[in-house]
Amino acid sequence: MPRARVPTGPPLSRRAEICRTAAQIFRERGYDATSVSDIARALGITKAGLYHYFESKEALLFEITAYGLDRVRDDVIVPVRAVRDPEERLRQLVVRHACIATNGRGAVAQLVDEVRALPPGNRRQLEERMRAYFDLVRGTLRELNAAGRLRDVDPTVATFSLIGAILWLPRWFRQSGRLTQEQVAEQIADIALGGLLRENGTARRTPARRAAPRRRPAGSRRTKVRSTK
Amino acid sequence: MPRARVPTGPPLSRRAEICRTAAQIFRERGYDATSVSDIARALGITKAGLYHYFESKEALLFEITAYGLDRVRDDVIVPVRAVRDPEERLRQLVVRHACIATNGRGAVAQLVDEVRALPPGNRRQLEERMRAYFDLVRGTLRELNAAGRLRDVDPTVATFSLIGAILWLPRWFRQSGRLTQEQVAEQIADIALGGLLRENGTARRTPARRAAPRRRPAGSRRTKVRSTK
Repeated sequence: MPRARVPTGPPLSRRAEICRTAAQIFRERGYDATSVSDIARALGITKAGLYHYFESKEALLFEITAYGLDRVRDDVIVPVRAVRDPEERLRQLVVRHACIATNGRGAVAQLVDEVRALPPGNRRQLEERMRAYFDLVRGTLRELNAAGRLRDVDPTVATFSLIGAILWLPRWFRQSGRLTQEQVAEQIADIALGGLLRENGTARRTPARRAAPRRRPAGSRRTKVRSTK
Repeated sequence: MPRARVPTGPPLSRRAEICRTAAQIFRERGYDATSVSDIARALGITKAGLYHYFESKEALLFEITAYGLDRVRDDVIVPVRAVRDPEERLRQLVVRHACIATNGRGAVAQLVDEVRALPPGNRRQLEERMRAYFDLVRGTLRELNAAGRLRDVDPTVATFSLIGAILWLPRWFRQSGRLTQEQVAEQIADIALGGLLRENGTARRTPARRAAPRRRPAGSRRTKVRSTK
């Protein structure tokens, strides 16, 4: 199995670097199949050196997941709460969350299921934060519904479907692929808003934004298919 | 952690019963964290008894995943291939796949990521079958596009988003919840077709089907939120 690569980007604190590397390895091999030694080896440090920062593999998983939720809070929840129009809020929410799910930290989004490995208290804490995000999305759909702008769809089913489509992104999106993360995020927002809103919506994406140039000609597509079932 | 329950239904062969129980335990605890002893204990048999049917935990995972792909082949791919109109094909495809993802076998759909634990040959075999399914979905979208019936969306992004929304289902759908699996499946198809097709489509769901009665009054909702990030 290939060794996890640390994505390039701005310099990270040692602690953040450990989290990022560990997240990549957890994603590739699975949390349970990864040992503290595997993570230390990928970082080029000793196990004792790793324990200086994190007392256990569980503590590392907890911090990684909490970090992912911090990103969702700072880059999605806080900015979109300031958007009054629910349709524009929905669009920004999808685009912002999809961008987080596809950037270097995308590995975090794939660790959703691994929280089962955490002690109940930690697990509950993370699940409450996930629940708050879910409520924000569903609340926006309910607001649209009350305003007669939602199609005849169930807001709960729609919320889970939308979040599922976004959280599936890191399983297939490749930074080296045909589309940029912003393009993919806009596409998912287009599909979601098209599926959820009545046609007379007011904040639909303009044709000019739709026609954004692609990074590469269509023939040189490199999007990889990894898991489709 | 609760012991895995074997869902009720028609009698299963011993082999199928082992697969079903193992799939449930893998889903609850994770594949790597589950031992052969855990599975044997849940079945009330000895480890030796289990090895009579499967030579290893990997063999069990392979058979479970292949079984899930067989269901997709028999209950989705084969019937929808016979549907000539691509819009009706897309609707049937979504409804049929969503129903599989939420029935007693739903546990299988959650094991997508665990195929990384299999030997390369087995893994490749399963991934090729997943790829064939992906190609069927994307091919249908491309056919719609060629007929001018697809919105201005990227068929690849749309395919992954759709499959992601369906494969997210077992993470949140509860058989004891407010909506039946058929209702949820129809809802997802409505959202998907609304998001992907131009408004002048011809095979949209009729109002009569939209107004299908709910199993329970809206006030008694029991859909549980499990993982939302």
